[in-house]
Amino acid sequence: MSTVSAPHRAPHPDRLFPADPGVRSVAQRIHHTVRDERIISPHGHVDARVLADDEAFSDPAALLITPDHYVTRLLHANGIPLDALGVGRGELSEAQARSVWRIVCENWAVFRGTPVRYWFDVELADIFGITEQPGASNADALYDRIADCLSRPEFRPRRLFERFGIDVLATTDDPCDDLSAHARLAADPAWSGRVVPTFRPDRYLEPALPGWRQAVDRLASVSDVDTDDFDGYLNALQKRRRYFIDHGATATDHSHADVGTQPLDPAEARRIYRGARAGSVTLAESTALRRHMLFEMARMSTDDGLVMMLHPAIRRGHHRPTGAAFGPDTGHDLPLRVEFTDALRPLLENFGTHHNLNLVLFTVDETAYSRDIAPLAGFYPTVFVGAPWWFLDAPEAIRRFHGAVTETAGYRKLAGFVDDTRGFCSIPARHDMARRLDAAGLAQLVAEHRLTEDEAVVVAGELVREQPRRVFKL
Amino acid sequence: MSTVSAPHRAPHPDRLFPADPGVRSVAQRIHHTVRDERIISPHGHVDARVLADDEAFSDPAALLITPDHYVTRLLHANGIPLDALGVGRGELSEAQARSVWRIVCENWAVFRGTPVRYWFDVELADIFGITEQPGASNADALYDRIADCLSRPEFRPRRLFERFGIDVLATTDDPCDDLSAHARLAADPAWSGRVVPTFRPDRYLEPALPGWRQAVDRLASVSDVDTDDFDGYLNALQKRRRYFIDHGATATDHSHADVGTQPLDPAEARRIYRGARAGSVTLAESTALRRHMLFEMARMSTDDGLVMMLHPAIRRGHHRPTGAAFGPDTGHDLPLRVEFTDALRPLLENFGTHHNLNLVLFTVDETAYSRDIAPLAGFYPTVFVGAPWWFLDAPEAIRRFHGAVTETAGYRKLAGFVDDTRGFCSIPARHDMARRLDAAGLAQLVAEHRLTEDEAVVVAGELVREQPRRVFKL
Amino acid sequence: MSTVSAPHRAPHPDRLFPADPGVRSVAQRIHHTVRDERIISPHGHVDARVLADDEAFSDPAALLITPDHYVTRLLHANGIPLDALGVGRGELSEAQARSVWRIVCENWAVFRGTPVRYWFDVELADIFGITEQPGASNADALYDRIADCLSRPEFRPRRLFERFGIDVLATTDDPCDDLSAHARLAADPAWSGRVVPTFRPDRYLEPALPGWRQAVDRLASVSDVDTDDFDGYLNALQKRRRYFIDHGATATDHSHADVGTQPLDPAEARRIYRGARAGSVTLAESTALRRHMLFEMARMSTDDGLVMMLHPAIRRGHHRPTGAAFGPDTGHDLPLRVEFTDALRPLLENFGTHHNLNLVLFTVDETAYSRDIAPLAGFYPTVFVGAPWWFLDAPEAIRRFHGAVTETAGYRKLAGFVDDTRGFCSIPARHDMARRLDAAGLAQLVAEHRLTEDEAVVVAGELVREQPRRVFKL
Repeated sequence: MSTVSAPHRAPHPDRLFPADPGVRSVAQRIHHTVRDERIISPHGHVDARVLADDEAFSDPAALLITPDHYVTRLLHANGIPLDALGVGRGELSEAQARSVWRIVCENWAVFRGTPVRYWFDVELADIFGITEQPGASNADALYDRIADCLSRPEFRPRRLFERFGIDVLATTDDPCDDLSAHARLAADPAWSGRVVPTFRPDRYLEPALPGWRQAVDRLASVSDVDTDDFDGYLNALQKRRRYFIDHGATATDHSHADVGTQPLDPAEARRIYRGARAGSVTLAESTALRRHMLFEMARMSTDDGLVMMLHPAIRRGHHRPTGAAFGPDTGHDLPLRVEFTDALRPLLENFGTHHNLNLVLFTVDETAYSRDIAPLAGFYPTVFVGAPWWFLDAPEAIRRFHGAVTETAGYRKLAGFVDDTRGFCSIPARHDMARRLDAAGLAQLVAEHRLTEDEAVVVAGELVREQPRRVFKL
Repeated sequence: MSTVSAPHRAPHPDRLFPADPGVRSVAQRIHHTVRDERIISPHGHVDARVLADDEAFSDPAALLITPDHYVTRLLHANGIPLDALGVGRGELSEAQARSVWRIVCENWAVFRGTPVRYWFDVELADIFGITEQPGASNADALYDRIADCLSRPEFRPRRLFERFGIDVLATTDDPCDDLSAHARLAADPAWSGRVVPTFRPDRYLEPALPGWRQAVDRLASVSDVDTDDFDGYLNALQKRRRYFIDHGATATDHSHADVGTQPLDPAEARRIYRGARAGSVTLAESTALRRHMLFEMARMSTDDGLVMMLHPAIRRGHHRPTGAAFGPDTGHDLPLRVEFTDALRPLLENFGTHHNLNLVLFTVDETAYSRDIAPLAGFYPTVFVGAPWWFLDAPEAIRRFHGAVTETAGYRKLAGFVDDTRGFCSIPARHDMARRLDAAGLAQLVAEHRLTEDEAVVVAGELVREQPRRVFKL
Repeated sequence: MSTVSAPHRAPHPDRLFPADPGVRSVAQRIHHTVRDERIISPHGHVDARVLADDEAFSDPAALLITPDHYVTRLLHANGIPLDALGVGRGELSEAQARSVWRIVCENWAVFRGTPVRYWFDVELADIFGITEQPGASNADALYDRIADCLSRPEFRPRRLFERFGIDVLATTDDPCDDLSAHARLAADPAWSGRVVPTFRPDRYLEPALPGWRQAVDRLASVSDVDTDDFDGYLNALQKRRRYFIDHGATATDHSHADVGTQPLDPAEARRIYRGARAGSVTLAESTALRRHMLFEMARMSTDDGLVMMLHPAIRRGHHRPTGAAFGPDTGHDLPLRVEFTDALRPLLENFGTHHNLNLVLFTVDETAYSRDIAPLAGFYPTVFVGAPWWFLDAPEAIRRFHGAVTETAGYRKLAGFVDDTRGFCSIPARHDMARRLDAAGLAQLVAEHRLTEDEAVVVAGELVREQPRRVFKL
């Protein structure tokens, strides 16, 4: 084990592998078999227009810092105001971008022990050839080196997409989105990458959310279906799902405070909907309708085959003053307790063994792994275990995840890794981290004679190839 | 560390031990001292009639697959319908049994990383001498080999019981059971094994459960005590507890949605009971009476000395269509959140320091280990920590269990391992797994100089000998 | 790795370090850099009078056993009545003290695997030079050796304080305490140690607690502010906070069943307070007022700068018969489930980015680490992660803590170790345990190439020096 720390430190080839030399060599061999597999990214937040337009990234801060709330929240937590980081300020001047970058470098220490630091190390080295640790003294030089890269054609989005070895990338999209960026990419003979949309209808399903009525009005207009009554609303959603499918979508994504799926009596659903359209809906009614609608989404999936991803139990915009000043997704969406077993029961009793439904469960409340998600996936053929997500997308948390779900559900019920990122350049680093941790965990099983190395190699391959394709129907 | 995978792979002698060579050798030495200790099985679901009748097991599927919902649920989760596995279809023809076995072999990969795979490997090798991995190509040959074994006298239940080194086996029984199988075994001069019943009154304690009235009618008839009023009902239960004690029972077992123990005003208890007998009881009343009755069970235990096991917080029969088609215990009893500290307070304030009560707490919600169970066991002399149960009965979960409870409660408050199995042949594999993980965990403490190796050996021995005997009064 | 167990066993220099030789040597090097750092103890329960009076400790039992509910609860859990341990019996005769000590030695085995055993081993060796394991045969001899030590001047409290290398020790005090012991120490030219009080107002903030009215009467008298109305009550509290600050306090400490901080309409707060003063308050009103008051405490902190520690979610005095017979803090204060994210939202939306507020969150419900505390500390500059507390103050739990919080919050948001002890002599052993586990955890990161060894050394130093000073304003 090397303990020398050179000023130039490329990410170590054995990073994240077990320290025990024997186990480490098993991990190396397993990882070697999946290291260069192409990336399947079934869920994330890259904007398809970035690839459709294929314009050069403007500057290092806009590429690596300002849109990435993982980075900005940690700096904010250590006393740096968000406006000093360019959050929510739109396009930055060169001086501003450089200042943001400098602040990040000066505060590099706040990332110690976090996955942000790990991803940065790998991104900077693998994409930009930078193996120095950022700091006050080299901040400007590093800015210049990255900026210089970004001006070169091989750092355009499409070239990076190819260099990253991305096989398919799913975006996350509003049901009213015209998906023109996806269409442009699909129609472009010079482009062979696969970028598929994902149907994310949250704001259309909760009448008490601000802007719901206008959203449903817009839904009527883009779908050309009258949404004044409940049946029209359902039809409009169904039509937009079809539109998404026609543009390559294979999945929907849902994130509400809970995963309740209790269906309403049809008359009650219509009554609540009517009231909501007329501007009169209680929070309880809105929640009841949303749970009914999650059930409806599953019913529609049994028809049209869209995979359902559930990302529940987040308190969005915990600090309202920050939300008001800097907008959403600024680092204070925080985890809540979650319960899946009873909440999903109505859905699963009706569709839990349906051949056309795949349901992928994610959580930011770890207690649900061994108590809810793995037991559900260990019985229902429709239920799959989603990858560690958000705050849990880090080495220790990923290890806990493996330990908590595989014994009950088996490896075959894992949906494979999902990067869920807004940081385009972090995609390969994140998938590589997942593959290393898969290899490390499997090597441990081999070392303890719970699996043969041959089998471990098969499992590692299935986790990055067959399973995401099968689960997400890609 | 061997990484060669031969087609024939006997379970490795060092399986489940730490990978570090130094720590592994400590684990080997500790394990060596308990490896051949006789098995005490204070809780499980083997049918005493199997041993009383001592007939040959009919076929490999009926012995190893169909009754074991650990196995069938994983196959179901991977798309195999339960009817193809012979679940709930009664006795299978030879062709059907062979087909079930073949499906299991063909889908061997779904067990990777699960304890089912581990138990199977050990069972097949140690009991049937099979060290090949099952698969499509050898399914029929393996079936024939196991079937051949089963036709031989040394594979009869009693011979296996002896070969497994079982010292005492507790079954789980309905309070109205006549325990004739236990009586036959006790009276048989050719049989020296100890098989004791356990009093499991769940269905008699919740009036809102289907069939409660008939159950209580039956209770009256077998106890010869009129259960029309509440006092008679209590007397009848008390009399059946005595009947169980006379047949060797040392414990009761209880599994409800929660462990509430709030006693009712006697008049209120009588009122609810009267209503329930007359067919009128609300769910809230039923729950209130059940909590009262759990308190009463503890009171009775302070009189008659029966140990109480609590296995709470399971949603039984989550998928009702499967329950309707295939019956109970078919793999979709799922964990719920649980809370012990406040729920048990009435019971513990009244009986928590009583010399005649032992209370063993189990959970499928891991969060209760360090928050509820270990702190309760770390103060109350009556409270003991039950072994990891159900979904948690697997290597990683057992390690988490050790880490979560021993620091707060100490090793002396552990009740020892409980296999809780319906799979007779899995008993030795399960106890061996537990002993290996005890040894591995203790070796880690020795390696970190937190315990001497001498002490670790003492602890390992106490966990398999003195502690289960003392806690379960065996 | 040594596995020899000699009858005399000094605590091993490598205790708690990783077993892997390579990782262990990194841990050794990191630990070496912080091993001798002076102790900062920002929260604990040592009585300042012990140091002010500086009288010899009376006997081994009174020093090491009777006041330490960690020790007595484990013995009680194993069947030793509390009265046999001298709990709640005031000063013990020499014979009684010797008897208590003998019981502890005879039951030494109950501590195996617990931190109590670890602390004892280190205390006995490092303070009293005892490296034999206590037992029946040497109990009296050990008693005599310790008693002999205690009669010598170098075992007086102040000399031990100096020998322990304590830089600053915070006590926990009632708002009405005159802090005369702190004042005597501060005024004593022969004493250079720093002992600061902490403002702990729990009983003044919950009108439904027994004794609240008398407590608030006393508050009026010591503060010389009329507390008959709500504004007077607030002023009196504010004045006492100032009094504490004038005596060196830098923090307040709060422990209620939850951390709700919902402010009330001022008129409603006044109404509840008036009713409570008149002897009429419901439990719901009491809880509402207490949550309002926690919000008020934060508001006051933004003015006077006192750091807030939150230690919520304990069921105090779970076993009322024991509480009645032996008093509070006798080992049956038990953990409850806790939720921070929504509960703290009102406080954080108002003061979560205030420059003058530091908020340190502690939990005995581990699920809150990765779900609530780390995400909150990973965004809010005012929120810091408190050390593992109470039942979680042990090696395995501390490792889980590291894994659960650092990836989300980063090391810089940790408040550093807090011993929280009533056992004066356990202070160095507890801090040493924390430093060893910090070193072990950081060594693991170095071994996995997630941090350089240079950085790990910096982090380890910050955790024991800069961070507690900065977070607790010491």
